[in-house]
Amino acid sequence: MRDFDEKNITRAVIDRFKNTPDPRLKTIMTSLVDHLHDFVRDVELTFDEWYFAIDFLTHTGQISSRSRQEFILLSDTLGISMLVDAINHRMPAGATATTVQGPFYVENPPEFPQGFDISRGLKGEKLFVQANVSSAGDGPLADAVIDVWQSDTDGFYDVQRPDLSEPTLRARFRADSQGRLHFWSILPSPYPIPNDGPVGQMLAATARHPWRPAHLHFMISAAGHEKLITHVFVQGDRYLDSDAVFGVKDSLVREYTHEPAGVAPDGTKMTSDWRKLQYDFGLKRLA
Amino acid sequence: MRDFDEKNITRAVIDRFKNTPDPRLKTIMTSLVDHLHDFVRDVELTFDEWYFAIDFLTHTGQISSRSRQEFILLSDTLGISMLVDAINHRMPAGATATTVQGPFYVENPPEFPQGFDISRGLKGEKLFVQANVSSAGDGPLADAVIDVWQSDTDGFYDVQRPDLSEPTLRARFRADSQGRLHFWSILPSPYPIPNDGPVGQMLAATARHPWRPAHLHFMISAAGHEKLITHVFVQGDRYLDSDAVFGVKDSLVREYTHEPAGVAPDGTKMTSDWRKLQYDFGLKRLA
Repeated sequence: MRDFDEKNITRAVIDRFKNTPDPRLKTIMTSLVDHLHDFVRDVELTFDEWYFAIDFLTHTGQISSRSRQEFILLSDTLGISMLVDAINHRMPAGATATTVQGPFYVENPPEFPQGFDISRGLKGEKLFVQANVSSAGDGPLADAVIDVWQSDTDGFYDVQRPDLSEPTLRARFRADSQGRLHFWSILPSPYPIPNDGPVGQMLAATARHPWRPAHLHFMISAAGHEKLITHVFVQGDRYLDSDAVFGVKDSLVREYTHEPAGVAPDGTKMTSDWRKLQYDFGLKRLA
Repeated sequence: MRDFDEKNITRAVIDRFKNTPDPRLKTIMTSLVDHLHDFVRDVELTFDEWYFAIDFLTHTGQISSRSRQEFILLSDTLGISMLVDAINHRMPAGATATTVQGPFYVENPPEFPQGFDISRGLKGEKLFVQANVSSAGDGPLADAVIDVWQSDTDGFYDVQRPDLSEPTLRARFRADSQGRLHFWSILPSPYPIPNDGPVGQMLAATARHPWRPAHLHFMISAAGHEKLITHVFVQGDRYLDSDAVFGVKDSLVREYTHEPAGVAPDGTKMTSDWRKLQYDFGLKRLA
């Protein structure tokens, strides 16, 4: 076929996918072409705008690296990530809500015993975290694997700090036989998503701020259960209602309580004030 | 706002763009979010598919370089480039139809006098090109600037051949005072678009071939006129009806005529058969 016009080209492109062996891929490509073409027609995209988009996407790929994933950021800031999350996590009662993974997770973090201080001496307000992991609506999950990661007091993750020589504010723990976990850290801070790249350019051009409210990340795995990827946000944070990546859910916001000097739950003697977070996680059983 | 679901998140994301200073950018971002979210909802994109897309797009950016533009290829193979072309080139009578620029144009090609042989000694069937450049429905355009580029006999552009030390099958000419142009080259070949990257992976997974019918590229600029970006395709090519990038228009297909040994139009003595292309280009006057 030849001489396509702005109406019939969409059908012609979709037709080109007719022999796709995998029916799911065929469905996805057909819908993608349909919606992308509708977008281009709706806004009557100019050549200059098209070329800007090509350049923007190319740069988004090229700035990505082992320690930075700009396409995830783009997906996050356009609400795509949370939409995919919503579609794929229709949760049963008692199961913890999910939220974005974000671009800062690193596979296979170092494993530490319970009670370890993952701040590894970084300055900050001392934080004691206590959690219980259970099967939603059922008993504790012994030996659940719990990955945690978080920002430091200045809002940076270790992968953004070339001065740190070892994984910091990032660890893997195992729940005990009662599904319990405790460890030490420091209070996380709100932070701007990396905004010196294409996504930052998009946010600036559209008068959007890049901030995320302070949170701890948790990724929890247990046999027979769906992997839980979520945050626990710090109650009172000024960005809870305008998270740059649309990730906040009320059920994930908790008070990080102020605690006076004295003896912490694990017996540690605290000579000044500290904070405490208590959260109970419920994992969804696999069908 | 918090606790978005798969329905209300789209409105929330669009609302976040409400203070965009440039109204055109606001229109584009609003429509983009609307259509992308519709796509994700329509196919109920899974996490694995989302992550595959993130990885695909990242790789598409990272394989791009000075001599390869994989995002343009992706746009071309999804029919986006020709759709943008159709929307932006509603042409008056007498104006030459446009088609994709493709990923192999290089800015500021070397300028040569008329009659130059841009094949620079590469093997192939000798081709003599004669053209006239005029203002659509009006007289000749003296001094129009004409960039040409094309594949070699094996279907490769110079930027794909590290063995070539200078621009080859690629040149800038100026029309004479009567808008005329002539130069020598070799017959272009059909070729597969680069298919060792993400776009090739997409074509293979969807049982699509990567071939483009043989063509010469022309980019013609003249004062007071819209820049013309087009091809002239070789009549009889087997891929004219299934161009991998949807770029063929009947008005851009011409016979590259077989000519016997003898004297060519510019006086060159030809000792064996050669080919001739004659094409008259009409440029659209700027409003």
